[in-house]
Amino acid sequence: MGEQENLDKKFQKELHGGITAMILLAVLSKTDNPMYGYQIAKILGEEQAESSIKQGVLYPALRSLESSGLLTSLVEPSISGPPRRYYQITPDGRETLSRWIAIWDKMEVYVDSIVHGE
Amino acid sequence: MGEQENLDKKFQKELHGGITAMILLAVLSKTDNPMYGYQIAKILGEEQAESSIKQGVLYPALRSLESSGLLTSLVEPSISGPPRRYYQITPDGRETLSRWIAIWDKMEVYVDSIVHGE
Repeated sequence: MGEQENLDKKFQKELHGGITAMILLAVLSKTDNPMYGYQIAKILGEEQAESSIKQGVLYPALRSLESSGLLTSLVEPSISGPPRRYYQITPDGRETLSRWIAIWDKMEVYVDSIVHGE
Repeated sequence: MGEQENLDKKFQKELHGGITAMILLAVLSKTDNPMYGYQIAKILGEEQAESSIKQGVLYPALRSLESSGLLTSLVEPSISGPPRRYYQITPDGRETLSRWIAIWDKMEVYVDSIVHGE
């Protein structure tokens, strides 16, 4: 049983690996307002708790997207606690997102054809 | 343009990461005949060349599935060349596959809801 759980966790983690960056770009592409990590986590958590991105994955993924030029960020003071880093998608980020969605859509069809096909 | 290609390759590679193991189990679950690497590569290549698994990824993935007990293998001499390693799915492999397909199906719905949703 422990072995099964390990296999499933590894599988799920690898699946998430590629998908996290695309999902973050997609969430930020739908708003003109810069968002901070916890806001994004809440949106993702509401969609479906089980599949959603853990916060320990979220922050490094946001930083990595920024260093690739797909997001920009700005630190703002917060009344209720420490300053927050707000992220916004760049024009490059939007272009990249649409290419990645095309790759994802093809991949999905391919995987389903094998996994659910004859 | 080079930068875009790098981003896309990285994305595609990470997407493939989690999916390869599931696809290999799925292909081997559909036959009672043991199959060797090149046979599997041909089946996958025919489905859709672009998304398909590169041979450099295929062989390590098969070995890793075997060491997890999801496949067994047997080396057989070949008339036309070097001996071939034939792989077959184990009962554990079948169970794992069906759990992974359930994880994949949920993930797919989740990603599409964010990427193609409002």
